[in-house]
Amino acid sequence: MIRRVSSFVFRVSLPVLLVALGGTAETHKYTPKKEDLKYTFATAAPVLKLKPGDTLETWTERADGNTLQKPGDWFPPGRRPNPQTGPFYIEGAEPGDTLVIHLISVEPAADVAVGYAGPGFGALTATRYTPMLDKPFEPRVWFYRVDKQARTVEFAALDSDFRAKLPLKPFLGCLGVAPAADEARATIVPEFFGGNMDTPEVRAGTTVYLPVNAAGALLYLGDGHAVQGEGEIAGTAAEIQMNVVLQVDLIKGLRIGAPRLEDDTYLMAAGSYRPLEDAMRIASRELIQWLTEDYGLSAMDAYELLSVAMESNVSQIVDPNFTVLVKIKKDYLPPKKR
Amino acid sequence: MIRRVSSFVFRVSLPVLLVALGGTAETHKYTPKKEDLKYTFATAAPVLKLKPGDTLETWTERADGNTLQKPGDWFPPGRRPNPQTGPFYIEGAEPGDTLVIHLISVEPAADVAVGYAGPGFGALTATRYTPMLDKPFEPRVWFYRVDKQARTVEFAALDSDFRAKLPLKPFLGCLGVAPAADEARATIVPEFFGGNMDTPEVRAGTTVYLPVNAAGALLYLGDGHAVQGEGEIAGTAAEIQMNVVLQVDLIKGLRIGAPRLEDDTYLMAAGSYRPLEDAMRIASRELIQWLTEDYGLSAMDAYELLSVAMESNVSQIVDPNFTVLVKIKKDYLPPKKR
Amino acid sequence: MIRRVSSFVFRVSLPVLLVALGGTAETHKYTPKKEDLKYTFATAAPVLKLKPGDTLETWTERADGNTLQKPGDWFPPGRRPNPQTGPFYIEGAEPGDTLVIHLISVEPAADVAVGYAGPGFGALTATRYTPMLDKPFEPRVWFYRVDKQARTVEFAALDSDFRAKLPLKPFLGCLGVAPAADEARATIVPEFFGGNMDTPEVRAGTTVYLPVNAAGALLYLGDGHAVQGEGEIAGTAAEIQMNVVLQVDLIKGLRIGAPRLEDDTYLMAAGSYRPLEDAMRIASRELIQWLTEDYGLSAMDAYELLSVAMESNVSQIVDPNFTVLVKIKKDYLPPKKR
Amino acid sequence: MIRRVSSFVFRVSLPVLLVALGGTAETHKYTPKKEDLKYTFATAAPVLKLKPGDTLETWTERADGNTLQKPGDWFPPGRRPNPQTGPFYIEGAEPGDTLVIHLISVEPAADVAVGYAGPGFGALTATRYTPMLDKPFEPRVWFYRVDKQARTVEFAALDSDFRAKLPLKPFLGCLGVAPAADEARATIVPEFFGGNMDTPEVRAGTTVYLPVNAAGALLYLGDGHAVQGEGEIAGTAAEIQMNVVLQVDLIKGLRIGAPRLEDDTYLMAAGSYRPLEDAMRIASRELIQWLTEDYGLSAMDAYELLSVAMESNVSQIVDPNFTVLVKIKKDYLPPKKR
Repeated sequence: MIRRVSSFVFRVSLPVLLVALGGTAETHKYTPKKEDLKYTFATAAPVLKLKPGDTLETWTERADGNTLQKPGDWFPPGRRPNPQTGPFYIEGAEPGDTLVIHLISVEPAADVAVGYAGPGFGALTATRYTPMLDKPFEPRVWFYRVDKQARTVEFAALDSDFRAKLPLKPFLGCLGVAPAADEARATIVPEFFGGNMDTPEVRAGTTVYLPVNAAGALLYLGDGHAVQGEGEIAGTAAEIQMNVVLQVDLIKGLRIGAPRLEDDTYLMAAGSYRPLEDAMRIASRELIQWLTEDYGLSAMDAYELLSVAMESNVSQIVDPNFTVLVKIKKDYLPPKKR
Repeated sequence: MIRRVSSFVFRVSLPVLLVALGGTAETHKYTPKKEDLKYTFATAAPVLKLKPGDTLETWTERADGNTLQKPGDWFPPGRRPNPQTGPFYIEGAEPGDTLVIHLISVEPAADVAVGYAGPGFGALTATRYTPMLDKPFEPRVWFYRVDKQARTVEFAALDSDFRAKLPLKPFLGCLGVAPAADEARATIVPEFFGGNMDTPEVRAGTTVYLPVNAAGALLYLGDGHAVQGEGEIAGTAAEIQMNVVLQVDLIKGLRIGAPRLEDDTYLMAAGSYRPLEDAMRIASRELIQWLTEDYGLSAMDAYELLSVAMESNVSQIVDPNFTVLVKIKKDYLPPKKR
Repeated sequence: MIRRVSSFVFRVSLPVLLVALGGTAETHKYTPKKEDLKYTFATAAPVLKLKPGDTLETWTERADGNTLQKPGDWFPPGRRPNPQTGPFYIEGAEPGDTLVIHLISVEPAADVAVGYAGPGFGALTATRYTPMLDKPFEPRVWFYRVDKQARTVEFAALDSDFRAKLPLKPFLGCLGVAPAADEARATIVPEFFGGNMDTPEVRAGTTVYLPVNAAGALLYLGDGHAVQGEGEIAGTAAEIQMNVVLQVDLIKGLRIGAPRLEDDTYLMAAGSYRPLEDAMRIASRELIQWLTEDYGLSAMDAYELLSVAMESNVSQIVDPNFTVLVKIKKDYLPPKKR
Repeated sequence: MIRRVSSFVFRVSLPVLLVALGGTAETHKYTPKKEDLKYTFATAAPVLKLKPGDTLETWTERADGNTLQKPGDWFPPGRRPNPQTGPFYIEGAEPGDTLVIHLISVEPAADVAVGYAGPGFGALTATRYTPMLDKPFEPRVWFYRVDKQARTVEFAALDSDFRAKLPLKPFLGCLGVAPAADEARATIVPEFFGGNMDTPEVRAGTTVYLPVNAAGALLYLGDGHAVQGEGEIAGTAAEIQMNVVLQVDLIKGLRIGAPRLEDDTYLMAAGSYRPLEDAMRIASRELIQWLTEDYGLSAMDAYELLSVAMESNVSQIVDPNFTVLVKIKKDYLPPKKR
């Protein structure tokens, strides 16, 4: 089930068209082998080169590396979470540009998803970042049945016989590029380069804009979630393999400060840092910047408009940085200037 | 336009009915004079006594005390924000109980709302809590036209001729009771006792549960907003006077830790503290507590269910404490046990 | 053992002398009865009136209300911590002035101090402000022998036979005035009005400056500590009753933003808020303000000088607000202008 | 002026001696050329290999890359701060070990130090991590005269003719190893691997323990400060080139969680994260761990002892993570067990 990329995409893709005139847009298929999976967002050798305008059909591994198979399973010491597919090199992308990713389809590639909570990660337990002397709870694993036809994900309680069908809302927990300043970050980390934002809006129909920090941008994706709560408080969502179709574009010479997202309805920005209020300041400041640059509002008018019309959610408070997403309906904005 | 209290209310109001059997539920009307307005949430002399089951029809002043009347107006030094109506004493309420407020109608009592941003408050400017050496921007005031028939609130930019019609979504920025431990808090403050949560879900059709900390609970309300963005980043919403109709109930012997909210669709909890991640921890922990006490889930199952199904927003990051609201659809829960 | 007030005091007390010319400085003795102890910093009826220049000899109760008497003791539900002596009304003090407290002597009034750690308070355990799902540890109580002659406080481990003699460094955990905006705060709280700062520098030989927020300032003191670590991480210090001698002064028309401290060597400022970096911003900003107003440095020069010469400690990270103390040696400053 | 390594070092160096028996401890001299300087803490090709027990004599560049030479100078866009010397590969070091660095001498290699404050960094100005809409102040640069004979550093105000002589207290702002999980971090960053901690206690006479995360540990050093305030609030200290002499050791099989420091008087731990209270939790938790492992105290006794006897400072609140240092006098501890 490939969903069509939403209409607004074509409004923003003019730069792509210009760039793409030199060649013909292609569709690439790429499935990583286990040894191709990556565990850092970094400047690394690409697995494939894409031109702006090209489409990529690919697959992402489950965040636990498919380790948890039955009740009672847990992780060996030193496991590395969030295996990524990539990096993909986008021709012509240079620092100071903006990479555009149109998410066309993000669909589960399996029928079972898994959630897990244990010592050291999650919002309501001590972590290495917020250490305590309290005694942690025991690890627990939940398995979810994913019904792609019915578009449901079934939660089954471990300590009672309760079950609940949640809507299937698949998205990518991770979408990122090589960080700035030659940094390499574990794939558990979200930051200005995107990464493990765990933002449910990173779904089919959304366009994500990421700052290009290295030649070729070096796009990574992974950590598919069949459904996730805003906050992801236990530390995981309904984790699952994904089939992903996306198209890449490029905006030359546009330097953005943090990930921007757009769909038919909203302009959005994601801030990832600690404490959480700073994540929200980052996201809000980025959205104001967008409104002033592209929509002609003064910074103060944009500030006030967001103060009365912005929507927000806490995407997650469980990763090394926390993520807030803010959004404004395009209906409330002036016509776009460019 | 009085909206009917939603159906679920009658499922939770059994305690009220029992209490109320001794008398007849009454409807009280109360309009404060200027000198009756309050500027602290405190244990103070009540303006009126209500029985559980009683209905209150009242009015709230605008957050600026109606000071800003035309472009260029600003505040004199020492002004006190957020005048409150109340307190209302609820008969039989004692520390350790839970006060129940069914919001039946929250409707603008004026045609103009006001927003303002200036030095010392707002998410993106230095405050006394986050002081800086940078030079603050100049104060600005925006006036909004509120059309109750069309259900719109019109934003008008100051620095261009842009105007946008936002939906009218009236609610109370402040709803609180006397704090615990004999504290008195300025009406700018949200905390465990409710108060200036600036949570848009505190609207008609929502039931709010607050912990009773003092004899009679001592209910305060005010700071009506015609519409507000989640985050309220400039420091204010579209501030306006409100006509409010609410019914009070009482749950004897239920001690909650933080404000809970409920409407036809959701169970919700509000956490107010700093840093913002702690506000979210407070809200999430309270919602888990609710699910374990009333819906029979184990704490770990509730934690996991919220991790995949919770919704969240940042209500505000501009008050002395920040507020996060979290919610779960009742459809995803087991039958209520009590 | 009454220590002489240090020499610098007389440099700052000119306003006092002027005020005091109308009368004769007196020495007042006051010992509270149990029912006189206070549990909020608030605008309340004073127990005594003092003139600027007057000396007060008084006594403070132990933070646990003397409840913990032997191993195994713990608190009944609803206990109120940090009983305070006061409030003392200072004649002539009005909002916008600064209250000056010269701490002349702070000496233990007992031979045993007590420390305790338990669920819900402390830096390394879940609290109502940072709630978790982990299992808390069991409450523990430590008793300390205080030797006033040898100037030692003896720690005795509970789980081994280790003992250590620490230096006796007595100070007041709480020193505060009525908060602004008619607030009343539990005596566990530090904030802009001072209060439960748990700052070891609040000791004999130090002068503390507090903003006057209410007529008479309304001075409270309590929570004596025989010795405390910087951070007070388990939630308590070596808690003990104190005999206190202090002299009050008044600076008319000086409005400070946060508590300032001064001794023969240092200028200091205390910031109390959350997150901890904001407490430090508050303290640093206040110290810059002091240097610009009284020592003639530009704000940028003061900023740079503090960047190379400031000292700091985290007084505590266990109260509802956290406290940072910053200081600069007077030797590094220009001559005082006033 | 090479200071002798302090006596306690030899108590901890038994593992070193054992390792070193296979060979003879050597002294290496290494001076980086400009193109050898590093801008990330990473797993990278070493410039030199050292054996445990070996001594290194080296030099570090100034944090600004020696760019600022006269009043009015400022940085070109895209400048990279904190050039590092290294990495040095320590033979036999493997993940799970602890690297021991005895700092023998840290002495200025120049007569002028520089401090600078400008938009985007510093504790009291908006940054990319705490963005604001306020107008930033103008960049300023201060030059300091360093007198190695007199052991002074002279501050000269820019906006008045005030000068002050501060004591020369040279140390390394940066001391770190390759991060865990194949991360590479900009040299502006402090974290669990050490790095840009800006902790004044990283000075001659101190031994620093860092977790080994990669084969050879890969030691980096740089960012020398002639003197720094605790907090480094303007964003820089008195920045200067350094001549450094250090000896490396290795403790096989000891896995520490965060940097530990030790001198003749103190055990110390450094925590680097955001918010600042979490940095302090990390440091405190690490110090408790040390006391329980090596000194035989129970965790609760260690917690209480630190609550009454710990010292702390905020090393800096200006880097991407904030740093707190905590310490306890060895005199207050039981005999070391191992």
